[in-house]
Amino acid sequence: MKKQILMLLIAAMMTGGNFTILAQTGVIEDFQPSSANQPGKEYPQVNSEGRVRVKISAPDAKYVQLDIGAVKYDLTKDAEGSWMGESAPQDEGFHYYQLNIDGASVPDPNSLYFYGAGRWGSGIEVPAGDQEFYALKNVPHGQVREQIYFSESNSTLRRCFVYTPPGYDQDPEKRYPVLYLQHGGGEDETGWSNQGKANLIMDNLIAEGRSVPFIIVMDNGTWRMPERDRQAPRETAQNEDRPRTWPPQGWADGFMKTLLEDIIPMIDNNYRTLADPQHRAMAGLSMG
Amino acid sequence: MKKQILMLLIAAMMTGGNFTILAQTGVIEDFQPSSANQPGKEYPQVNSEGRVRVKISAPDAKYVQLDIGAVKYDLTKDAEGSWMGESAPQDEGFHYYQLNIDGASVPDPNSLYFYGAGRWGSGIEVPAGDQEFYALKNVPHGQVREQIYFSESNSTLRRCFVYTPPGYDQDPEKRYPVLYLQHGGGEDETGWSNQGKANLIMDNLIAEGRSVPFIIVMDNGTWRMPERDRQAPRETAQNEDRPRTWPPQGWADGFMKTLLEDIIPMIDNNYRTLADPQHRAMAGLSMG
Repeated sequence: MKKQILMLLIAAMMTGGNFTILAQTGVIEDFQPSSANQPGKEYPQVNSEGRVRVKISAPDAKYVQLDIGAVKYDLTKDAEGSWMGESAPQDEGFHYYQLNIDGASVPDPNSLYFYGAGRWGSGIEVPAGDQEFYALKNVPHGQVREQIYFSESNSTLRRCFVYTPPGYDQDPEKRYPVLYLQHGGGEDETGWSNQGKANLIMDNLIAEGRSVPFIIVMDNGTWRMPERDRQAPRETAQNEDRPRTWPPQGWADGFMKTLLEDIIPMIDNNYRTLADPQHRAMAGLSMG
Repeated sequence: MKKQILMLLIAAMMTGGNFTILAQTGVIEDFQPSSANQPGKEYPQVNSEGRVRVKISAPDAKYVQLDIGAVKYDLTKDAEGSWMGESAPQDEGFHYYQLNIDGASVPDPNSLYFYGAGRWGSGIEVPAGDQEFYALKNVPHGQVREQIYFSESNSTLRRCFVYTPPGYDQDPEKRYPVLYLQHGGGEDETGWSNQGKANLIMDNLIAEGRSVPFIIVMDNGTWRMPERDRQAPRETAQNEDRPRTWPPQGWADGFMKTLLEDIIPMIDNNYRTLADPQHRAMAGLSMG
């Protein structure tokens, strides 16, 4: 028994005291502000285990929870009326999250906001082993352009974001391949540059000579089903008379029509593309 | 008395019942969703008086308030646990606001988010008499380009947004005047396109032949004072030994240096500007 206590003390000294804190709470106290915080905000924070810690002042609340990864974590109130607490370790990379204050699901006032899960809300970056891949570096930077255009096939104004690589404006004769890059379900045309950092990834790859420069078009592929399908009650959808496949038949037809009739011609007319199938590609995340 | 009641009934019939509601609550029931709502959200809403009505589910909250225009308005809870209520009439145009849930100041989960008052938070549009001036219309649209650049004078990476007018990419010989357009205090480089709709205003003016096309550069003019001034305690600042002027002397020098040494040369190198003082202008809002 004495030997065990001695070993614990030695371990505590070797880790600068962190061992003691870990033994008491199970949480390593090396939290740092998230890179997706609003300017100057100390919270939310992430530790080396990938735990997310939030802090918010809510002096009159009965309870406050951190809601991340489909789990709600109870926070603890301090003497000043601030609530703090942390999640279990999260996977590397970007996560959506929200706070729950006495039953209200709200964004964290300290984080930046991103479009995912069908709404603008809080996001956090758990530092990843390959974070240099998407880091903001002092290399030549391309531009991300907000492009508003009229869709003839839908009679509506739409928006996409277009990445043009470094040097695009320098040589008015040079033409580029185009990648049509789609977001995942519940996300929109902002996702690949805001949370996906597609522009920084490309800037870094081009600077390292690991990619040829090309144009990236990021549009919104979310499409509503025709009215007859959307109005079908849940009971009908669960009825075995209809095949229950995902995605339902015809779901992507609306976006495909807009892509072929509006988006690709608009891009080929307004950007210096290599406008043939050999220099046009499509990729995406989840539903993309 | 009978005559008065009769006139009230006639007035109620003439206004389709709204008169009765107004007499009871003092609020005209013609609320519509704000144009600055997240996609598909019914709330927040604005009525013809310019009142802002919010609604949020918070079943376990003791109180919820709408905080707009430096006034907090108490909301009322319904049987389902949703809180609703409205502000006094607001001025036309864009307003920042937030919700207060049991003492926690948080963004409204239903609005879009804008950078103002030193943080990203909720915003709402009270329809203005001149809203056609900044409406999204089916006219030729310019682009808003996110431009990342390295500031030699600060040894840091910075970001600005650059509006290029419709047709900018069509004629590679044409050069344009440049307007350096600054945000107000507590805002940043995103403000003039997000809440200020500078790009839509220009697209509309150019389409109507009311403006020649020009480039607009929107950078971040917020600057921290040197350490010695920021660390001075409040007592010192209130001491009459020092003149109490606003802005304090030297406050804008940091941005002026960056503008002259980094931003203007970078713009003249990367965009087809008319790079002389006769074709370079500066304007701004409040601190701009």
